[in-house]
Amino acid sequence: MNRHLALGIDFGSLSGRAMLVDLATGAEEGLVVCPYKHGFIEDTLPSGGVKLPPDWTLQDPADYLDVLASIPRLLAQSRADAAEVVGVGIDFTASTVLPVQADGTPLCFLPAFQSHPHAYVKAWKHHAAQPYANRISELARSRGESFLGRYGGRISSEWLLPKLMQILEEAPEVYAAMDRLIEATDWIVEQLTGQERRSSCAAGYKALWSKRDGYPARGFFTSLDGRLADVVATKLSPQVYPVGSRAGSITAAASALTGLLPGTPVAVGHVDAHVTFPAAGLSRPGQLLMILGTSTCHLLLAEEEKAVPGICGAVEDGILPGYWGYEAGQPCVGDLFDWFVRRQVPPAYHEQAAERSCSIHQVLREKAMLLKPGESGLVALDWWNGNRSVLGDADLSGLLIGMTLATRPEAIYRSLIEATAFGSRLIVEQFEAGGLPVCEIHACGGIAARDPFLMQIYADVLRRPIRVSASRQAAALGSALYGAVAAGPERGGFADIGSAVQHVPREAGTVYEPDPSREAAYNRLFACYSQLHDWFGRGGHDIMKQLKALRLETSLP
Amino acid sequence: MNRHLALGIDFGSLSGRAMLVDLATGAEEGLVVCPYKHGFIEDTLPSGGVKLPPDWTLQDPADYLDVLASIPRLLAQSRADAAEVVGVGIDFTASTVLPVQADGTPLCFLPAFQSHPHAYVKAWKHHAAQPYANRISELARSRGESFLGRYGGRISSEWLLPKLMQILEEAPEVYAAMDRLIEATDWIVEQLTGQERRSSCAAGYKALWSKRDGYPARGFFTSLDGRLADVVATKLSPQVYPVGSRAGSITAAASALTGLLPGTPVAVGHVDAHVTFPAAGLSRPGQLLMILGTSTCHLLLAEEEKAVPGICGAVEDGILPGYWGYEAGQPCVGDLFDWFVRRQVPPAYHEQAAERSCSIHQVLREKAMLLKPGESGLVALDWWNGNRSVLGDADLSGLLIGMTLATRPEAIYRSLIEATAFGSRLIVEQFEAGGLPVCEIHACGGIAARDPFLMQIYADVLRRPIRVSASRQAAALGSALYGAVAAGPERGGFADIGSAVQHVPREAGTVYEPDPSREAAYNRLFACYSQLHDWFGRGGHDIMKQLKALRLETSLP
Repeated sequence: MNRHLALGIDFGSLSGRAMLVDLATGAEEGLVVCPYKHGFIEDTLPSGGVKLPPDWTLQDPADYLDVLASIPRLLAQSRADAAEVVGVGIDFTASTVLPVQADGTPLCFLPAFQSHPHAYVKAWKHHAAQPYANRISELARSRGESFLGRYGGRISSEWLLPKLMQILEEAPEVYAAMDRLIEATDWIVEQLTGQERRSSCAAGYKALWSKRDGYPARGFFTSLDGRLADVVATKLSPQVYPVGSRAGSITAAASALTGLLPGTPVAVGHVDAHVTFPAAGLSRPGQLLMILGTSTCHLLLAEEEKAVPGICGAVEDGILPGYWGYEAGQPCVGDLFDWFVRRQVPPAYHEQAAERSCSIHQVLREKAMLLKPGESGLVALDWWNGNRSVLGDADLSGLLIGMTLATRPEAIYRSLIEATAFGSRLIVEQFEAGGLPVCEIHACGGIAARDPFLMQIYADVLRRPIRVSASRQAAALGSALYGAVAAGPERGGFADIGSAVQHVPREAGTVYEPDPSREAAYNRLFACYSQLHDWFGRGGHDIMKQLKALRLETSLP
Repeated sequence: MNRHLALGIDFGSLSGRAMLVDLATGAEEGLVVCPYKHGFIEDTLPSGGVKLPPDWTLQDPADYLDVLASIPRLLAQSRADAAEVVGVGIDFTASTVLPVQADGTPLCFLPAFQSHPHAYVKAWKHHAAQPYANRISELARSRGESFLGRYGGRISSEWLLPKLMQILEEAPEVYAAMDRLIEATDWIVEQLTGQERRSSCAAGYKALWSKRDGYPARGFFTSLDGRLADVVATKLSPQVYPVGSRAGSITAAASALTGLLPGTPVAVGHVDAHVTFPAAGLSRPGQLLMILGTSTCHLLLAEEEKAVPGICGAVEDGILPGYWGYEAGQPCVGDLFDWFVRRQVPPAYHEQAAERSCSIHQVLREKAMLLKPGESGLVALDWWNGNRSVLGDADLSGLLIGMTLATRPEAIYRSLIEATAFGSRLIVEQFEAGGLPVCEIHACGGIAARDPFLMQIYADVLRRPIRVSASRQAAALGSALYGAVAAGPERGGFADIGSAVQHVPREAGTVYEPDPSREAAYNRLFACYSQLHDWFGRGGHDIMKQLKALRLETSLP
């Protein structure tokens, strides 16, 4: 036994992945990817025919346990002795919440609740709680709640409190039966250590908690709904633990499931986006990290607290100790391209992909690459899953403009990529307009690693170099680093996350430089995007809202 | 020999069809459909690699001759003696024009011009003459030309004069070499009879000619361009012949090509849309006929002359003698659905169509039928090929709004159909607002005959019963009726078109009744459509123009 390995477990949208990292070399010693059997549950419950309304996105926690059960396979594949694993870190999509009993059992595991949609995990992209999010935002605004400024003036339907209110209103029996509504990242920590250690990262970014003020005051909850007066004490876990601290260690039961040794240290859980910041080697104010996956998350480190409209979260010590961490995002990026290839690409393209044994994305990319910016005459608004930043409105929807009879699939594909790049540019401009300088742009995530065509468009649209982190598993690497911090120097780990970032070697990544010859055309397209953005996203043109209202009414039985 | 047959030859967008009708029974005795070998020429010339700019749509007149050459096959297949054919009528898309020499030879048949795009036929949907159309409209407006009111205040890029100006400006050598720029319908008549007999229908609707005032005055042409001073005398045919009259008779050369007897009477040529009006049995003011094909044409008969903004043409005796004939249209209907199935439908749908040996349209229809109006949350603007009525602007383009990650192809397909129905509703409302009552709505054309799903949507959106003509070849039938009028009673035909309509039996068609339960949802969707229509089509929101300008600039070499 001569290695110090740290285990990072990253729970993404559609799969979990467990990775072992050698702390001396930074090398990935092994990786197991475990797709969730049920993926996103959007049509009917796994237990049978219960049909879900529009905008619902559930998950089954049994799928998360399958990820933990894959760890013995990881150890075997990495020829790792469990004793070599010095510590474990966890990260998860957020806010992904599930109602559980006092002992941590998910309600949906109980026969009485297995046909009840509200008993399942509400995934981050469950958007059916929008009316509750609106209510919370309005109340906070009318009461002049100071926390609202930290969240860009708007509470997202993706966060914990709107989801909790939806359960209270629509399924009071589930609300009564649950002892806690727990973040999935904390639930995994509880599965491994036997105790909940509520993460400051999830609580700060997704549950209105702050280091200085704690949760919103009792009076706020009472004004929202009398039944919520004691919600923090009775349904949440009032005690919050800072990221970077140790949550506990592997129990005997968890050892049996994972093959890890009892007593192995486990870090307080993280949010998948935020954990990648140190994994990308970032530690300075002004550094912006875009995590490009099914959705995109933008993280910015800054010295100061600023209230920037439309930025989803500002949390002190939320990304790295000593700084304010700002978060913005786009809820539909990889998901959008996948929607397109599944729903909008004709057989001839799929046949080309099959003949060449390459992905359909590759076929589309190669064709789209031949187009010049603006040549297709198309612009899209990338709101297929609503808008998170800077409008914070899940009721918005997609738009495509400029089609002619000559429009080809690759032109639409490219316009969708460009639309997500324009959305990112708007976010960067919003940060800077709000007094938060953006000095460097970095990227990580699956799309950043595997799509140079997209990254070049982003560099051209943003008019800045973009540095892509070499790690294809940035979140898992970040979690592993936190696992090493939970272990501490005495077990071969590190004293704090700064030391871990400094000492664990990282591979150099790719840098995409903007092409100045494309700037003028992209500026014109971005001007079109911005006009459409403001017409449909702000002010009086509420056509998307009208269409959504009609859609919801007509889809009622 | 005991039959009186009339031959109607209908030249559509992508094929020509020749039909023999028994005048006593109304029965279709034979039909030959002849697809144009070159279809629409939009990428490169048939003669080799000459690449066409965006918005160009040419045709090859050799394809039209192939249609005439199929007539012997029609006679054989119908077991018809050529002596049984009492007369021939012709109709053609318009304005479809070609530059020819004095003897009728198309310039593109000459080796010197076969690589010259401007020497070919400019098809109706050739939209690259838009700048010239704008110039004509502006000049007419500034001079207060009275003819402008008859065309809804705007000259379409699809008409003869903009296309002629494009040749003059961009290819003066072609302009110099052509002895005439002739409508394709008149060119076919010339091929059959040896002489041009310029049709009042094509001249009235497409070349600014009127029964009372003739062509625009010399001063107008001079102001437009000094070189156009004598354009009517030198490049057009000043003498115009009323529809319903005889153009001449089959020459020996035409007899050799077609197998028809020399001397068989031939009617003055028609426009394909207008010739269907009598074929549908219509003859009263207030009757509106929609001809649903690759594009849609709306024809309305009225007692009075009214200047209705955005209605493309008002021609006295243009449809039936004694009335004003009004024309409006949508330039992209069947073309839009075909674009969608070719470019936007994934393999699984095509596989279902193949397994069931049905069309991909049928697969989409059956899925789309299960949706309620408004359920998909989508609305489109049907401007993939610009807008003809009521905006008259070829620079507009398509728009689709409301997409989410749950949006399926059939929902988009349905929204495209609905968009074309909304466009028709807007046209009907424009007629009525302009003081022209619409008492009955009739439909004919390929789509009306074969798509009950679409027709039901139209009835629901228009909130009126729609009567579909039973003839699947309405244009060819209309031409045949005019062929019978050219023959006259002495040869077994009729004295005038009214008698032909009255005496030739027609099959009863289908009536689609509006479903009142869908009215409320469609009214809400139509309100969204109308708002989008006005934002993007009128006034300050010129995003579609900006995108088109950028598209044209970037597609330059």
